[in-house]
Amino acid sequence: MTQHLLAIDDLEPGQLRTLLDLARSHADADPQTESRTQLSGVTVAQLFYEPSTRTRCSFEIAARRLGADVLNLDINHTSTVKGETVVDTVRTLAAMGVRLFVIRHGDARVVQAAADVLPPNCHLLNAGAGTRQHPTQALLDMLTLMRAGFDFARLDISIVGDLRHSRVAASAVEALRMLGAASIRMGGPEGFLPDNAPAGVSLHQDLKETIQGAAVIMALRIQRERIAADVLTDPQLAHPTAYHEQWGLNEARVAQWAPSARVLHPGPMNRGVEIDDELADGPRSLILDQVQNGVAARMAALTWLFHGDSIL
Amino acid sequence: MTQHLLAIDDLEPGQLRTLLDLARSHADADPQTESRTQLSGVTVAQLFYEPSTRTRCSFEIAARRLGADVLNLDINHTSTVKGETVVDTVRTLAAMGVRLFVIRHGDARVVQAAADVLPPNCHLLNAGAGTRQHPTQALLDMLTLMRAGFDFARLDISIVGDLRHSRVAASAVEALRMLGAASIRMGGPEGFLPDNAPAGVSLHQDLKETIQGAAVIMALRIQRERIAADVLTDPQLAHPTAYHEQWGLNEARVAQWAPSARVLHPGPMNRGVEIDDELADGPRSLILDQVQNGVAARMAALTWLFHGDSIL
Amino acid sequence: MTQHLLAIDDLEPGQLRTLLDLARSHADADPQTESRTQLSGVTVAQLFYEPSTRTRCSFEIAARRLGADVLNLDINHTSTVKGETVVDTVRTLAAMGVRLFVIRHGDARVVQAAADVLPPNCHLLNAGAGTRQHPTQALLDMLTLMRAGFDFARLDISIVGDLRHSRVAASAVEALRMLGAASIRMGGPEGFLPDNAPAGVSLHQDLKETIQGAAVIMALRIQRERIAADVLTDPQLAHPTAYHEQWGLNEARVAQWAPSARVLHPGPMNRGVEIDDELADGPRSLILDQVQNGVAARMAALTWLFHGDSIL
Repeated sequence: MTQHLLAIDDLEPGQLRTLLDLARSHADADPQTESRTQLSGVTVAQLFYEPSTRTRCSFEIAARRLGADVLNLDINHTSTVKGETVVDTVRTLAAMGVRLFVIRHGDARVVQAAADVLPPNCHLLNAGAGTRQHPTQALLDMLTLMRAGFDFARLDISIVGDLRHSRVAASAVEALRMLGAASIRMGGPEGFLPDNAPAGVSLHQDLKETIQGAAVIMALRIQRERIAADVLTDPQLAHPTAYHEQWGLNEARVAQWAPSARVLHPGPMNRGVEIDDELADGPRSLILDQVQNGVAARMAALTWLFHGDSIL
Repeated sequence: MTQHLLAIDDLEPGQLRTLLDLARSHADADPQTESRTQLSGVTVAQLFYEPSTRTRCSFEIAARRLGADVLNLDINHTSTVKGETVVDTVRTLAAMGVRLFVIRHGDARVVQAAADVLPPNCHLLNAGAGTRQHPTQALLDMLTLMRAGFDFARLDISIVGDLRHSRVAASAVEALRMLGAASIRMGGPEGFLPDNAPAGVSLHQDLKETIQGAAVIMALRIQRERIAADVLTDPQLAHPTAYHEQWGLNEARVAQWAPSARVLHPGPMNRGVEIDDELADGPRSLILDQVQNGVAARMAALTWLFHGDSIL
Repeated sequence: MTQHLLAIDDLEPGQLRTLLDLARSHADADPQTESRTQLSGVTVAQLFYEPSTRTRCSFEIAARRLGADVLNLDINHTSTVKGETVVDTVRTLAAMGVRLFVIRHGDARVVQAAADVLPPNCHLLNAGAGTRQHPTQALLDMLTLMRAGFDFARLDISIVGDLRHSRVAASAVEALRMLGAASIRMGGPEGFLPDNAPAGVSLHQDLKETIQGAAVIMALRIQRERIAADVLTDPQLAHPTAYHEQWGLNEARVAQWAPSARVLHPGPMNRGVEIDDELADGPRSLILDQVQNGVAARMAALTWLFHGDSIL
């Protein structure tokens, strides 16, 4: 029995696989004819200390499709909690009857502290914290690969961009390794590489080397403020256009170096920086599949946390 | 089959009349005993790139009375979409399963572009765009006139105020002409007149001339920043009080010049500028009827877009 | 038949007691198995002109557990109502079909004015106004005392802190007197005392004298901006730490002076100012009980306003 989902490695490999099967069944269901009873009478609170319309909406749609009520706390833009700590806010909402908490915060320790004070009948779902944890993003990425027909045991996947600051990349790597991915390459300019390669992953500083022959390429979102000479060690990259020249993914490069590759991106995209329009909107793109699968993955995670392994 | 409702002239006259009949049946229904099944399991997303609590609430109540889920994206006050284009936001929400989009934006071309990328099972409803389009406002205005007993074939209506910048006026004129209104006058100070009179409409620069003998007077909301010497050609109007002196509607003027007239205003009112309290709150006023009918008109528009002409 | 709940003294003592009994039955119910039909088809609008995530969430959860739709108007942070008066906003929402209004505003006269314009089938619930009125806070405090086993006829209660500006204290005193509390003491530094003691209440300027032997101690939230030499007459209190030294409640003081006391606080807490962690989180604390009971108290108030005394 797992009370919270803070990171992918909270899961056993078997749990991850069954959770993905559950998510797949939600992805195949018709929203109009669902029973919407799995979480009926349950209140889900969303606490986003960092803004993310995309993830918040995905969780809100998921929770409502399960019959839950959703309470949105727009904490980022307001001083409405009057300086209250996250721990006190979470305790208070639990006392009001909230049973599921969806939290995004810049500091993973704060999310852990919030989880630690919750009573046993309350469950916390990390919607992105720090630079390492974003478990439902990893779930939706894996679900997308499964539904696109990939077999993890043979999967050759490349992750490109700001690997150092990306919780998307960190979570994906955890899940890919747990599912036994055959090959994981990561590539980006020097300042974007992690200090050490995660176990089972090779690091590259050249785009061709990173993606050549890959079956799947995952592009990461590049935060513009990080493309600057003091972050990237190579001052020639200190502008989005220059970055795009050297590391941007486009149809021509992918067609040449990884002709059968499908492409992922967690969104929102900086078109013309890490990816260009032709690739993002073309037939290789699985980007809208990811968005669609995100709702199903979150439905599975919410249901599983609330009802426990018996649901699987 | 119409996929989107961007402007009144997306409708055939017959569709407009049947849509108004559908709206009338919603206006006559009791919210407490409705079945709330027409849009059950459907998610409506509201994207307001210009703020409007009034219109947003009206759509939200309408959608909920039909059994839909409503997702509010408070885009105006936040940077939560991280610079994503409207087109990418709409595509993303469609991938999450959103089927109805309610959008307000300052630029009508952006709304058109959003409509153009939506798949066939997704429908967009323009909640106000640019200076020409506000179709549900026109629907609610026409519904209000119908329910107040007016016969369009004999209707003598006057529209007063900032005609040049008003999507309310532009949409009303389209609907009135489609329904065969007998006479449409428009009046306002020179800087507030359109460059050309719309077909079938007479333009006036004198209040008495504009409203004399009218059966209905529609007052427009005056944006205070537009009452200034560089916008209005007459510097004597360059203050709300001066504007009110010359163009403001009050009970005495209406009683004298159009003694049987009923009065419309789209709200929110600038009391003491374009209209005074006695008129706004008196027996001629249909202003709260408009608000009430707004919910019914939006219920009809949402239902019709989703289910198609078969619902009519 | 009472149309609105603006203040505790809108209630007869008998009504207050029956309302508390109704609240108690909601507090004992299981949210997952409730019928959620008492307010089905009813729209509740929340208008918070002062921010309060806590109270807003509590009302939202209460309304949803009764089957209502909830419309949130985030008026505080936006200019979305375009300068419209509260009275016009309320009239407009009533025309849209809103039947229950939950309003918080700094000025109690504005709330009264809003109530005055509502039609008879619309009901307004004051969620905190001015420095005197916060009726649902008093309900939840009384419910908490009842459920903790206190008998009002024997109750010896002390209220500590900024009594002068606290609508929590003013409302609690009204309810306590109506329920026949045996003894009510209030204490705080001179600048925080009301000009006159409310009838039946004794005022104190010493913490020990205020709480000695009390069965219940209610700590009030201290607004930091009020702890300053120009507000507090004693310049030695002009810092939160200094205030805490002299007036802060902690376990040691309570254990010594009121060894059997239970402790209330309306939240959110300034830990280390008016209360310390050991007391707030210890076995004397009823603070999370208050939060839990807040939902039940608001369910009772909403149901009673909408359905009238027949529900009691």
